[in-house]
Amino acid sequence: MSTDSQQSIPIRAGIVGASGYTGAELLRLLAGHPLIELVVATGDSMAGTPIADLYPSLALAYGDRRFDAYSPDLVDGLDLVFCGLPHGVSMGIIPEIQSRVGKVIDLGSDFRLNDAALYPEWYNAEHSCPELLEQSVYGLPELYRSEIANADLIAATGCNAATAILTLAPLLDAGIIEPDPIIVNLISGVSGAGRPPKPNTTFCTVDENVEAYGLLTHRHTPEIEQALSLVSETDVSVLFTPHLVPTNRGLLATCYGRPTRSTNTTEVLAVMSEFYAEEPFVLVSDRSPSTKAVAGSNAVHLTGRVDERTGQVMGIGVLDNLMKGASGMAVQCANIAFGFPETTGLSVVGVYP
Amino acid sequence: MSTDSQQSIPIRAGIVGASGYTGAELLRLLAGHPLIELVVATGDSMAGTPIADLYPSLALAYGDRRFDAYSPDLVDGLDLVFCGLPHGVSMGIIPEIQSRVGKVIDLGSDFRLNDAALYPEWYNAEHSCPELLEQSVYGLPELYRSEIANADLIAATGCNAATAILTLAPLLDAGIIEPDPIIVNLISGVSGAGRPPKPNTTFCTVDENVEAYGLLTHRHTPEIEQALSLVSETDVSVLFTPHLVPTNRGLLATCYGRPTRSTNTTEVLAVMSEFYAEEPFVLVSDRSPSTKAVAGSNAVHLTGRVDERTGQVMGIGVLDNLMKGASGMAVQCANIAFGFPETTGLSVVGVYP
Amino acid sequence: MSTDSQQSIPIRAGIVGASGYTGAELLRLLAGHPLIELVVATGDSMAGTPIADLYPSLALAYGDRRFDAYSPDLVDGLDLVFCGLPHGVSMGIIPEIQSRVGKVIDLGSDFRLNDAALYPEWYNAEHSCPELLEQSVYGLPELYRSEIANADLIAATGCNAATAILTLAPLLDAGIIEPDPIIVNLISGVSGAGRPPKPNTTFCTVDENVEAYGLLTHRHTPEIEQALSLVSETDVSVLFTPHLVPTNRGLLATCYGRPTRSTNTTEVLAVMSEFYAEEPFVLVSDRSPSTKAVAGSNAVHLTGRVDERTGQVMGIGVLDNLMKGASGMAVQCANIAFGFPETTGLSVVGVYP
Amino acid sequence: MSTDSQQSIPIRAGIVGASGYTGAELLRLLAGHPLIELVVATGDSMAGTPIADLYPSLALAYGDRRFDAYSPDLVDGLDLVFCGLPHGVSMGIIPEIQSRVGKVIDLGSDFRLNDAALYPEWYNAEHSCPELLEQSVYGLPELYRSEIANADLIAATGCNAATAILTLAPLLDAGIIEPDPIIVNLISGVSGAGRPPKPNTTFCTVDENVEAYGLLTHRHTPEIEQALSLVSETDVSVLFTPHLVPTNRGLLATCYGRPTRSTNTTEVLAVMSEFYAEEPFVLVSDRSPSTKAVAGSNAVHLTGRVDERTGQVMGIGVLDNLMKGASGMAVQCANIAFGFPETTGLSVVGVYP
Repeated sequence: MSTDSQQSIPIRAGIVGASGYTGAELLRLLAGHPLIELVVATGDSMAGTPIADLYPSLALAYGDRRFDAYSPDLVDGLDLVFCGLPHGVSMGIIPEIQSRVGKVIDLGSDFRLNDAALYPEWYNAEHSCPELLEQSVYGLPELYRSEIANADLIAATGCNAATAILTLAPLLDAGIIEPDPIIVNLISGVSGAGRPPKPNTTFCTVDENVEAYGLLTHRHTPEIEQALSLVSETDVSVLFTPHLVPTNRGLLATCYGRPTRSTNTTEVLAVMSEFYAEEPFVLVSDRSPSTKAVAGSNAVHLTGRVDERTGQVMGIGVLDNLMKGASGMAVQCANIAFGFPETTGLSVVGVYP
Repeated sequence: MSTDSQQSIPIRAGIVGASGYTGAELLRLLAGHPLIELVVATGDSMAGTPIADLYPSLALAYGDRRFDAYSPDLVDGLDLVFCGLPHGVSMGIIPEIQSRVGKVIDLGSDFRLNDAALYPEWYNAEHSCPELLEQSVYGLPELYRSEIANADLIAATGCNAATAILTLAPLLDAGIIEPDPIIVNLISGVSGAGRPPKPNTTFCTVDENVEAYGLLTHRHTPEIEQALSLVSETDVSVLFTPHLVPTNRGLLATCYGRPTRSTNTTEVLAVMSEFYAEEPFVLVSDRSPSTKAVAGSNAVHLTGRVDERTGQVMGIGVLDNLMKGASGMAVQCANIAFGFPETTGLSVVGVYP
Repeated sequence: MSTDSQQSIPIRAGIVGASGYTGAELLRLLAGHPLIELVVATGDSMAGTPIADLYPSLALAYGDRRFDAYSPDLVDGLDLVFCGLPHGVSMGIIPEIQSRVGKVIDLGSDFRLNDAALYPEWYNAEHSCPELLEQSVYGLPELYRSEIANADLIAATGCNAATAILTLAPLLDAGIIEPDPIIVNLISGVSGAGRPPKPNTTFCTVDENVEAYGLLTHRHTPEIEQALSLVSETDVSVLFTPHLVPTNRGLLATCYGRPTRSTNTTEVLAVMSEFYAEEPFVLVSDRSPSTKAVAGSNAVHLTGRVDERTGQVMGIGVLDNLMKGASGMAVQCANIAFGFPETTGLSVVGVYP
Repeated sequence: MSTDSQQSIPIRAGIVGASGYTGAELLRLLAGHPLIELVVATGDSMAGTPIADLYPSLALAYGDRRFDAYSPDLVDGLDLVFCGLPHGVSMGIIPEIQSRVGKVIDLGSDFRLNDAALYPEWYNAEHSCPELLEQSVYGLPELYRSEIANADLIAATGCNAATAILTLAPLLDAGIIEPDPIIVNLISGVSGAGRPPKPNTTFCTVDENVEAYGLLTHRHTPEIEQALSLVSETDVSVLFTPHLVPTNRGLLATCYGRPTRSTNTTEVLAVMSEFYAEEPFVLVSDRSPSTKAVAGSNAVHLTGRVDERTGQVMGIGVLDNLMKGASGMAVQCANIAFGFPETTGLSVVGVYP
């Protein structure tokens, strides 16, 4: 245990906002995590409801346990709180939580952007505690492992951003592609839209359908640009276009950039492989990645190509939006932050078929 | 009837290669077409099998009728033959058919490319009757209506190509985007892969999966480039990347190009609307098109955007690959070629949800 | 025209409650019906919204047309009104409509049961106009064609009930199975649950899931029992158990009864075939019926078996819940009621695959 | 370690027939099983192919490892062999394996039936080593835990049979339902049909479809009857009707029987709960079970109802066919047979949504 000599194992953790899909995925992961004990799981709209009624998948693990109603006292003294609240809600409650617990990992977008001015631009609202943005560490271990190890507030990377950033970071780091413009064409399953029923996520709307959404204005754009700009040490601009398809889980990003110099597929694959050589959750190969191969796991599969005919570099990446794109990433960050082996409680094997 | 004063209505037609999905879709359409009588339906691997055993959906329309085994005599004297054979097979049989029937509409790729040299490059085989390539008309009514009206050999546009071409043609025609490079990111349902079982089209492989295929080398690339080069009167180069998702029908192309000059979304939408102003099957709107909206219909839905942040023009188009991407397009071509009202037997309304 | 010498063709029709899925399916069918002109389409919650915004599949057929807000004046003088309102709402408005129009076809359940006492028992509410129950004709042409021809108020059969009744009626009519108990195990797609988002019909809830619902108490039970009791001229009791599976459309009923006497599969198939010998939309065969074969069509496919090992008779039937289970059935009833050819505007061919 | 004092931990195991879906699921489970080391994985048709090429989901766990070609030497001296071969193949090879290894767990159907005469009746072939049928133990821990603990040859229960047996056993054990006839109406995902492509398991065939198969003659019928007859100590006869629906995993059995005496839902639930009170993988509740809740886990969810209107008892059960219906069940049997904690390497939490 590098971080805190007084900590007893298992550490004591809570989930604030446990009734959504990322919360349920945390409940699933923590049921099998030997070093983290879940002591609190709040879900205000579901307070008092048995967890098993909302998620029968958790019935044998959680028995008669019910969602709690949040109160500051409930989390007081915990070693760790995962926060699975909607955008705009996290920033209102995390200062209060932070003063009572060891570490906070936020799965929402409220603490991901360094520049407070981007919130009104992309989220239509001022940030209520911009001073915390400086303190917050971006929860992407492949880029920020050492910062995460020492952070008290971690903003776990969003699912869309994680896919795009992990695919493109090696290419920008190596200076193989131009930083501007980069096209990120993303194909997404539905669970990223969350549990509450909405007109655009009913079965009959989504099934047998393919549709782009958020054209030109998707909120995850600045998160991608921020991380990639830091990697490339110059301003990166991204045209990000997500498409909804009928799968539960899974994101696939097909990314296009112009090469800065003569290159080829072999070099691109080598650059990607080397960048992630020590990473336990990242696989680079020449196979075209499939979302199904990573479903239920914390794995990321990547490939790259250079099209000499049209002068384009392509990178393709997949991950499970609820795992490496949310709750799995958050647990990976927790493992790092508490000095546990990084893969504890996280599988690299997809549930296939 | 503009084309042939001796023709009696309904015309007498055959399908050679009726047992595949495009053949079955033709059987569906012709069951409801008042001006075309289907007199022959061959399917060599299924010869003697009742149509209803292979396609129970056709049982009430076709009763005990069985697939025929092809022979030249069987089609002799027909007004029209639709050819639904695999690539490489059509070119072997169409010369024989052509000498016996009025008009031939090929749904395969054997007669789509004008330049015979492209076949060995993209299809790994020499063309066996290159002299017919000159005679063949590309079956895309929105670009070649008058040529189709007078053609004896029509090569109906392929599904992937139709989606890309119809989305991009107005932008290239108007000179709004650079011809090189253009990125076509396509998302495709499974029925385009045909009826025969293959490892990559089993339910368990495709369901809950998203995966790109044919990276850099997909055979429909030259077809797209040929048609767009003709529209733009300069060489167009396209990076075409299809992705397979778990839907039966439907193609969505998200196309990216650099603007040649200052432009905006309003202008792009106006250019697209004007280009298709008289087209019965094409809808241009500012809504993001969905494949489900066109399922089972011959409709094409399009939109466009200009991203001023990154300097990119986007066009998005959807169609049903078995309809406007194959059999519906073929029937539309037949209607034109025989002087029928162009929408005869073709619906513009999708079967939703 | 048998029914009304003053009627001009096309007749003038309205849809009250056009914004739900059965309403949208009526809009689809009427767009292609040569003898019915749609002059009014109301949808109170969507009043003023362009039809194409809610259903882009209808965009090319309906252009800029918007949903109307219902008022009695709007339907005044129409030849026909289809009513697609939720249970309990129809009974409040249909008396008002009936006084203003020629004929009313209700797609809801408010006028299906003959015995008003069943409404409080199964629907938890008294019927507000029980006197109309006597006048109402059950809209199942295969059993009540002549009554439909002369009816002014037709209660189109519900989707679950239509599947069960059409499967079992020949067996009860022939006295081959005992009337009590009959087991109806139904498997259902999701569109029957309607358009509004609900927790149990989101994509992520339904996809990759199978689940029974309404155990012992599903409201369509008395409708099935009523129709089958009339056929068998004795009290029929049915245990009806529906199961939700991830498909848009389609119902499959697997029905089990004990034989009254020695019988076999051949006899059961013969009885079913004979019963429906003249029916344009019903197919009886020894193939196991598939819901996909009837999708988008008004067809019903049936089969039967006798299991001599366990002494059970099985009947299996499939239909498209929005077509033969709702809007297609309603149009078929309209065709009969106005003396049109019964199949006008209705396809027997499924959209496959 | 109760069974064998010389055994070292982890035990050394092999999979013969590892390239099919049950083999792949064993590979997934064993990658995370701390007490079983996989030393051999054969797949004759795939011998020499990297595991990751066939199953990219396993890439990070198995690296460059390839499928072996089977030879007796390869398994010689192993503590345990899992056999995932097709029906009819297992019986030809297991005698040879048995002589070389400690214990064999067969996932196929070759050693499940006690009475050799049933093989020609239901499988159209004589059994080649009927003497082993006596020695083989039926691998259903909830009924045969102590026998499994001491067995050298375990025939893991089939997926369909496991669902039906686990649902019905408590009711027959308690004498609440008549043993003849019992109706088992099963709804099944596609992965049970295996990996090789077949006409009836392509995506376009299965997607948006519901269809019954194996009417009256499904081979798993005698397995269900055998186990339930042993439980009830009288001859049980079952009409088993499976239906294929578009999900990857999951089985749901809706079972119907006549009560032997007056009973009600409360009693039925109590009987089921008590029967499984000590079982780690079985949940009995009054919720209607959903297949999705158990996906990826070894859990079984059950409920029961009594319909007093029609005089029927219903039991409903769900499990994941590749887990509790195959590979998870096999690992559970292995845990028992080697004296490991029974839940080692097996999750009770479904991957949801």
